[in-house]
Amino acid sequence: MTHIRLTSLAQSLPSTVPFVGPETQERAAGRVFDARLGANENVFGPSPRATEAMAATQQWMYGDPESYDLRQALAAHHGITPDHIIVGEGIDGLLGYLVRLMVAQGDAVVTSDGAYPTFNYHVAGFGGVLHKVPYRGDHEDPRALFAEAAEVDAKLVYLANPDNPMGSWHSGADLVKAMETLPEGCLLVLDEAYVDCAPDGTAPVLDADDPRLIRMRTFSKVYGLAGARVGYAIAAPELITAFGKVRNHFGMNRAGQAGALAALEDTDWLAHVKTQIATARDRIAEIASDNGLTPLPSAANFVAIDCGRDGAFAKAVLDGLVARGIFVRMPFVAPQNRCIRVSCGTPADLNAFAAALPLALADAEKA
Amino acid sequence: MTHIRLTSLAQSLPSTVPFVGPETQERAAGRVFDARLGANENVFGPSPRATEAMAATQQWMYGDPESYDLRQALAAHHGITPDHIIVGEGIDGLLGYLVRLMVAQGDAVVTSDGAYPTFNYHVAGFGGVLHKVPYRGDHEDPRALFAEAAEVDAKLVYLANPDNPMGSWHSGADLVKAMETLPEGCLLVLDEAYVDCAPDGTAPVLDADDPRLIRMRTFSKVYGLAGARVGYAIAAPELITAFGKVRNHFGMNRAGQAGALAALEDTDWLAHVKTQIATARDRIAEIASDNGLTPLPSAANFVAIDCGRDGAFAKAVLDGLVARGIFVRMPFVAPQNRCIRVSCGTPADLNAFAAALPLALADAEKA
Repeated sequence: MTHIRLTSLAQSLPSTVPFVGPETQERAAGRVFDARLGANENVFGPSPRATEAMAATQQWMYGDPESYDLRQALAAHHGITPDHIIVGEGIDGLLGYLVRLMVAQGDAVVTSDGAYPTFNYHVAGFGGVLHKVPYRGDHEDPRALFAEAAEVDAKLVYLANPDNPMGSWHSGADLVKAMETLPEGCLLVLDEAYVDCAPDGTAPVLDADDPRLIRMRTFSKVYGLAGARVGYAIAAPELITAFGKVRNHFGMNRAGQAGALAALEDTDWLAHVKTQIATARDRIAEIASDNGLTPLPSAANFVAIDCGRDGAFAKAVLDGLVARGIFVRMPFVAPQNRCIRVSCGTPADLNAFAAALPLALADAEKA
Repeated sequence: MTHIRLTSLAQSLPSTVPFVGPETQERAAGRVFDARLGANENVFGPSPRATEAMAATQQWMYGDPESYDLRQALAAHHGITPDHIIVGEGIDGLLGYLVRLMVAQGDAVVTSDGAYPTFNYHVAGFGGVLHKVPYRGDHEDPRALFAEAAEVDAKLVYLANPDNPMGSWHSGADLVKAMETLPEGCLLVLDEAYVDCAPDGTAPVLDADDPRLIRMRTFSKVYGLAGARVGYAIAAPELITAFGKVRNHFGMNRAGQAGALAALEDTDWLAHVKTQIATARDRIAEIASDNGLTPLPSAANFVAIDCGRDGAFAKAVLDGLVARGIFVRMPFVAPQNRCIRVSCGTPADLNAFAAALPLALADAEKA
């Protein structure tokens, strides 16, 4: 008998990770990437006011476990109350808590086949049974997702709007309409990580007290604070309160709270970044077209580029880019895996991408 | 039927939190504490090199999910390998992952009655059944804990050395000897949060491959980085690897990793802080004695002061201090709750404590 008696669930889990980080790839290759365009980070960075607030943080003090100031500011920003908001260690952390609260072993959960792997990781980690619905024309398919949820009596259904990895999106009005078919007993997990750079009207207009959904937001994308690990969720107070039963109450780092608060207040910087993201999206699309590839429309801070053949070909293109110091990623599942996914970068980043892409394509065509 | 169908376990959990933060108390009182001496933080702060490293962090990038550089440095520091180390969101976060990995509903766990509430919170949160063993003379009692673990077939037994909230400690040699009675099938969770300011010989000398225990360490105490949320655990690689099945892989903030690395390397600052802690402990003891109270010996960055009567009296003293702007805490359980617990502070902090204590005592005696 060993001293390490894992639960039967823990024993059954694989040791695979949802994503291998760029640093791991850099260490394996023995070189640093010239352009870091694979993690949908915001190379344009956070508001200088956020940077200043973080640098000024008294690190010897624990962060406020209530994230009170940040929740107050977010409530004002969204026109809701702080009781509708929970702040956590990124959307990843909040997804973990949510799944833990609602998914017991054997409970059904629905997502799209090829959508966010970290959500799937958490569902597996608590013994949930995941049912996958195909994309429809590179869009997640809300009505099909909700129909499947009804079919399997799902407790959760996951939908990202805009979608990662494809960059596609639905209008908020269409989502509200589709939600009429959301079955009773099923909570919609609406991941809006990229909504801050989407066209107006992408976020559905719904009452914060609506018990049918929880919305996930983050400071990691358009706000440029991926390193600070600050996400939040908006839902009815009944559900928000439940997070207090399981979360790591002192899990939020103090500088992250201060940085997020400052970033939220700097609306000028946000507008500036959104312009840079739009410009970069156009430039990525142009580079793709120049190489005979098809950029997909995107409401996010990345562009999926259709390489025109199968997954093996796109993977060869990706490998050729990575070998040339350009960090990018790609969808996991066919037919979306005919694409590579390129995050918005600085002009220098995208020049490096433009230089590497024809060479990567030539390699892939020879392979 | 609601959309929010919590698991039966989640439904059964209370919404109480292990600790109410000082900021919450400040908001309730409408004033900021003059001296923050209740959370065992390190008022002397982190190494200036850590502060500099954190301020220089590129916040737009996610942190390395492997915390590779920090684990390399920790491995060299302890003379072990990075495979023996997992870095996480404070000891609190790591305790949560550990309980999740090992404790299924109904599994037995053993701790001391009055020891760290956040550990108990995690055990309850995963449906474990907690068995409590009394302190013996204000010390946790390893042999009694291990005997209880054998009795109830515990998967985990928790022991803090030095202990919080009492500040008492066992020599490492005594612990190694006591571990001969640790039953097969039970993992010792050795919380060494305060060991960095304990007398030499407090940390047991044990092989990092020893499968009987996992050691918890933190940058929140002597390293002065509570706000950064960086803890780590040392155990046999078999157990360390298992954390990868459930942890939030991108949960570590990037600045925290950089700050911890810089703090670890600044041994001069650590020595400086340890001197300040020792001086502050002596000053707290002196203030206690001057007021006719009994300071308990402490190997931690706080001192438990025996107020000489019951828990109600100590609580009245605590309330009197808090009302005068001095944030302190106290043990939860009799007979340890005859004490208040005062963290090491600056000379100014402790002067404020010295000024408030006689008034708080007079109030408590009148009550």
